[in-house]
Amino acid sequence: MQFSPFAEGNESRTPAEVFAVRENGSEPNGPGWIVRVVPNKFPALESEGELERVGEGVYDQISGIGAHEVVVETPNPEEALADLSEAHVQKVALAYRHRLQELSRDPRIRYILIYKNHGSAAGATVLHSHTQILGMPVMPTTVKRELESARDHFLNKERCLFCDILRQELSSGSRIVFEEEDFVAICPFASRFPFEVLLLPRHHAHDFSRTSDEQLGSFAGSLKRVLQALKKTLGDPAYNFLLHSAPVAEAPVHRSDDWQTLSLDYHWHVEIIPRLTRVAGFEWGTGFYMNPMPPEDAARYLRESLS
Amino acid sequence: MQFSPFAEGNESRTPAEVFAVRENGSEPNGPGWIVRVVPNKFPALESEGELERVGEGVYDQISGIGAHEVVVETPNPEEALADLSEAHVQKVALAYRHRLQELSRDPRIRYILIYKNHGSAAGATVLHSHTQILGMPVMPTTVKRELESARDHFLNKERCLFCDILRQELSSGSRIVFEEEDFVAICPFASRFPFEVLLLPRHHAHDFSRTSDEQLGSFAGSLKRVLQALKKTLGDPAYNFLLHSAPVAEAPVHRSDDWQTLSLDYHWHVEIIPRLTRVAGFEWGTGFYMNPMPPEDAARYLRESLS
Repeated sequence: MQFSPFAEGNESRTPAEVFAVRENGSEPNGPGWIVRVVPNKFPALESEGELERVGEGVYDQISGIGAHEVVVETPNPEEALADLSEAHVQKVALAYRHRLQELSRDPRIRYILIYKNHGSAAGATVLHSHTQILGMPVMPTTVKRELESARDHFLNKERCLFCDILRQELSSGSRIVFEEEDFVAICPFASRFPFEVLLLPRHHAHDFSRTSDEQLGSFAGSLKRVLQALKKTLGDPAYNFLLHSAPVAEAPVHRSDDWQTLSLDYHWHVEIIPRLTRVAGFEWGTGFYMNPMPPEDAARYLRESLS
Repeated sequence: MQFSPFAEGNESRTPAEVFAVRENGSEPNGPGWIVRVVPNKFPALESEGELERVGEGVYDQISGIGAHEVVVETPNPEEALADLSEAHVQKVALAYRHRLQELSRDPRIRYILIYKNHGSAAGATVLHSHTQILGMPVMPTTVKRELESARDHFLNKERCLFCDILRQELSSGSRIVFEEEDFVAICPFASRFPFEVLLLPRHHAHDFSRTSDEQLGSFAGSLKRVLQALKKTLGDPAYNFLLHSAPVAEAPVHRSDDWQTLSLDYHWHVEIIPRLTRVAGFEWGTGFYMNPMPPEDAARYLRESLS
């Protein structure tokens, strides 16, 4: 077994924890935790400093200020997220919600991305199961485009784009992996990647940080089910997991109640992308993706694995 | 040595050629060629059929009509593009120009992408050196965005964005790999990938298919120099090569002279992306890229390799 800096007993190998789920009255930064959140030891963005925007001729620069944290999902370096109990996954989701709420208070942060690289083909460098949280001073390009599409749709139709997609998918059924009371998993229409899965709340909700404890429980069950289906169908594939939630706020000066203005033009969701194919010149040159596995077939395989 | 379907003598293993550079009076589809262009045996898009656009609820579909061709750059399966003589690379470029001109006449085609995957880490499946040409019935997302940026800049300033970038780079010098009479190679500001290189015509030109024979010669020399510098610095890295030229036309009904309207808001160029790092959750989730190699350092290494 490889040494893991994230394992129970190695708490001194990481920066001091910013959040942990501990149920036995254990002390911070010692053993006894179930889920533990620490600042990334090698952060992509620094937490200290002023946010500065500078132009240089035609170019734009912004200082690398933000937050970069690691959610260690289990004290055991051998366990994967898919193998944890539903109750344990719920505690991981609780950590996501807590950090989203906390980091949203930093006025320098414009967007908080929660993402996971499972397996080295998906870019994981530490194999001990963990999720990364990145609070960024700018809105990411891909999120911006998704928000713009959703907003355009809302302005045209006064309906949520994702709710419309969900209604259409539920009525056709061919791309549904499963539908539950609170969450639905689908293989998206014209998926970019084989076995790509979209997990989204069945009832409209734009902001993951406002998810209730009860909803977190349903989410944990559904997420575990998606990961189990992928594992049964593909045999523990490398994957990326992306939680897309509404941005912290449109402008950093207007907070809290302004979130409401976003409420119908976004719908939070999770994208799970198994890394089975290689991105090549075509994909870089076009932004299009060639996918040899139709989502209708992928959904059928995944459904069958769960039955 | 592995069997190559593209090697001289195996002409019957590919579909019949659509273009070839032959200098000794040899017959089509037999040996004696220097560069040979054939339809892709496993095309991503079919050449026969009607172009149909269909809506399905919130989704859009278009039939997979277009052209997918392969430029076999050399009869010798052992040679890489970087190793060919300048005169030979010029013949490869001549094949690009010829196919761009020909495929532009197909009214179903909106954009023609010329791209190359070198090495299996870059997605190459056949290792015999070749380039792919894809004529598509829709404008690719990434090209559309690049065109929009360039057009916005032009509408604001009545100057070409790429010419402005070139002027700024030539005056600062820190990201220049080399400058020649006709072409300049730079490591772009805030490069997405380590050792990414942008090769562009020094004097404004929007459409590769209008390049003169003399300019093709200069281009061949410059392209070879970039590939040699990457090889000397990184030891034959896998790479993707993308030729970005102006779209065939904005609307399929207006051709030829309408190209002029695009002339100042685009500037053709080649992107060369060595595949040294892995794309992970962060990149998928944001559209941003973490690059451990500053372009200023990359440019210096590449400059030194050429001196």
